[in-house]
Amino acid sequence: MPDTLTFIEQNLGRFRSELYDFLRIPSVSAKSEHDGDTRAAAEWLAEKLASAGLTSEVIDTEGHPVVLGEWRGAGPAAPTVLIYGHYDVQPPEPLELWTSPPFEPTERNGRVYARGSADDKGQLYMHAKALEACLAADGTLPINVIVLAEGEEEVGSPNLVPFVEQNAARLACDVVVISDSNMYAEGMPSVLFSLRGLAYFEIHVKGARGDLHSGQFGGPVVNPGNALAKIIASLHDADGRIAIDGFYDDVVEWDEETREQIRSLPFDIDAYRKELEVDALGGEKGWSTLEKLWIRPTCDVNGILSGYTGEGAKTVLPGRAMAKVSFRLVPNQHPDRVKPLLEAHLGKVTPAGVTVELVELHGGRPWKAKVEQRLMDAASSALEEAYGAPAVLQGEGGSIPIVVDFEEKLKAPALLVGFALPGCNLHAPDEWFSLDSFEKGIGALARLYGRLG
Amino acid sequence: MPDTLTFIEQNLGRFRSELYDFLRIPSVSAKSEHDGDTRAAAEWLAEKLASAGLTSEVIDTEGHPVVLGEWRGAGPAAPTVLIYGHYDVQPPEPLELWTSPPFEPTERNGRVYARGSADDKGQLYMHAKALEACLAADGTLPINVIVLAEGEEEVGSPNLVPFVEQNAARLACDVVVISDSNMYAEGMPSVLFSLRGLAYFEIHVKGARGDLHSGQFGGPVVNPGNALAKIIASLHDADGRIAIDGFYDDVVEWDEETREQIRSLPFDIDAYRKELEVDALGGEKGWSTLEKLWIRPTCDVNGILSGYTGEGAKTVLPGRAMAKVSFRLVPNQHPDRVKPLLEAHLGKVTPAGVTVELVELHGGRPWKAKVEQRLMDAASSALEEAYGAPAVLQGEGGSIPIVVDFEEKLKAPALLVGFALPGCNLHAPDEWFSLDSFEKGIGALARLYGRLG
Repeated sequence: MPDTLTFIEQNLGRFRSELYDFLRIPSVSAKSEHDGDTRAAAEWLAEKLASAGLTSEVIDTEGHPVVLGEWRGAGPAAPTVLIYGHYDVQPPEPLELWTSPPFEPTERNGRVYARGSADDKGQLYMHAKALEACLAADGTLPINVIVLAEGEEEVGSPNLVPFVEQNAARLACDVVVISDSNMYAEGMPSVLFSLRGLAYFEIHVKGARGDLHSGQFGGPVVNPGNALAKIIASLHDADGRIAIDGFYDDVVEWDEETREQIRSLPFDIDAYRKELEVDALGGEKGWSTLEKLWIRPTCDVNGILSGYTGEGAKTVLPGRAMAKVSFRLVPNQHPDRVKPLLEAHLGKVTPAGVTVELVELHGGRPWKAKVEQRLMDAASSALEEAYGAPAVLQGEGGSIPIVVDFEEKLKAPALLVGFALPGCNLHAPDEWFSLDSFEKGIGALARLYGRLG
Repeated sequence: MPDTLTFIEQNLGRFRSELYDFLRIPSVSAKSEHDGDTRAAAEWLAEKLASAGLTSEVIDTEGHPVVLGEWRGAGPAAPTVLIYGHYDVQPPEPLELWTSPPFEPTERNGRVYARGSADDKGQLYMHAKALEACLAADGTLPINVIVLAEGEEEVGSPNLVPFVEQNAARLACDVVVISDSNMYAEGMPSVLFSLRGLAYFEIHVKGARGDLHSGQFGGPVVNPGNALAKIIASLHDADGRIAIDGFYDDVVEWDEETREQIRSLPFDIDAYRKELEVDALGGEKGWSTLEKLWIRPTCDVNGILSGYTGEGAKTVLPGRAMAKVSFRLVPNQHPDRVKPLLEAHLGKVTPAGVTVELVELHGGRPWKAKVEQRLMDAASSALEEAYGAPAVLQGEGGSIPIVVDFEEKLKAPALLVGFALPGCNLHAPDEWFSLDSFEKGIGALARLYGRLG
């Protein structure tokens, strides 16, 4: 281990500089204009895995390619660890809110700012560098390693499950390790006990044949903008609960041990509020903030567009209105159950005079940790050694839909260890990653590989 | 008169071709990038008034200029008629919904399609050509004429009232004639008995410090998109009435004669619905469609924008949401009364965790005709002769805020005679004007000038 840690220390400057090259590639999977960039990111990563000592391939799918790296030098008797991450990123818009350009990594105050720095290129690349360090310093590893990096995580991983199914034998493993989440706080490394799922929709409301003059038609003509507002408002009741019949049917009651675990974490609600620059918090009555974030479902507008939104006062009665609305789900909700429930709700609340169309953009199942205590302990001690502080168990409000699929298809439990920090602006302007975490995390992962052996 | 009508017939091709030149100038007053075009339209018009035989000037204001044309050859004993119109146009967006480009006038099925063809360049230019015909054919007119064309009607005429006040002596007149409205139906020329007013706002909702990840923050953080939907939904009650306390306080009860006048007009609700391509109509319970359009107020979303509205599923919890919301007002509501009522309402319905800012973009007062019967009859007979059908009295759902100001500042009643046809896509893609109306309307206006003498 000492040699590995020394190697990391000595090569840290190069590791960072390589990461910045990775971050410069605008691999925005949601936008077809970036398809070439997304492929370039895959090829770049495959080359780096190869130079770290793994065999590597870029494998085509019907969408963006999968990068597969393998090192099987530990032999068939040793355990096999599959490391999963993604090399695609969220769209960077709105660009004008970035302090430095999203695809020009910029260091400020011990952080690197760039789209993908935290989610997930930074964390994925820490695994690549930890593997390189172990193989370079020791020449070997006590585990077989498969690195599986996809380019479609931000668009719902449409081609990853088929890929895993078709390559199940090659991907067979004992545990899946994923670093695509946050630590609970700076200096408090964490292992996850849950993830929320996702059901993401577009609601399209159609009114008259086209945009109309709001004076000449306003009154008898039902306005799709007003109708959409009414529809969205109907999705919550006065207590902040989701007012869709049957929505909570599959929500599990969490055990008292987990809720006690949540209560035991330090949480300063005033600091949280202030950091967000809001006067008050909201959400579902009767639950704490951490519970609202981790173990309760949500319904959020992600976008709304109708009519004229430019400069000045255009007196138009719009012909259309659209909202992107998504639900974060908790165990044991299933995204496939949400669409019919929402459709039935829309049928009840949509006013006469407009029509509504519901389009499902993507979904992902929530997850509860099933990993055995021995592996949890291995992760905890690796983190504690690297960070000098005990690891905590926490939930995660975001979604990594593929986790449930990995567990089902590969019959191996998932271990989720994340290194981003709260407030790192995931999916938002000025996304950043801590340079200290980049260094300590590589050390923690190198230790983890040793302990999983 | 026969000479004038012959002149119109003989010069109709040129009149059209000149109108198309006028329509080619993208004088979009709301967009500063078109300031040069807006001025070019003013200069073009002034030149055409001069060649029609009027003296003309382009007069600067703090915004877009005013065009003033004058012909005072009838002498001080003759009545003076002020003709008002506007040479600015609404923004043409969304461009992709236009069949032919908005600033390339295109003839199809007896119509010319272009932004401004109906509102108001086409109608304003009919006055210019009727004046030219009278002066060319007879060498004189029985009335003095002032043509006042502004370039800010579509942005609320911020500089016209000061202009009228500063030039009240020069603009002194006996009647103000305005053609910026519709006929009741094809072949049914009309004079207006009312206009609705307008109070136009932007509602800005601010949530957290910026856009957030909907998974990492969804739940406790109040979503400005959801909050805005709740606010907009709260503006109407279940009966389609506006649910703002005090909003109806100043609405006049209309006399039975006017309501009977409205009821007497032919109106095919199924044809109306079908033409709009909607299954049902809505609006305030207890009123007919024409009443909802003419004598009842409205509250319409003109635009909404929040979060991510591009391709794909971005899981963002937006930091901001904005709606353009406007109210059509009826006599005797006043736009200045609406803002404090709406502000008080927002104070009651805005959820904790977001802040709201109300910005008034512009307002205009509603109007009830006060013109004496003699002038009304002059208009009716001029229209009947030109169209071969009796003129009807009708209301108008749109707003021409300056009408009330003219009456107050110039102490002269307004006579509103419009030539656009219902369904002409005012403020919408594929705006059009009937070529038949362009011809007949010029004849009707030439006759009207004669009768006003």
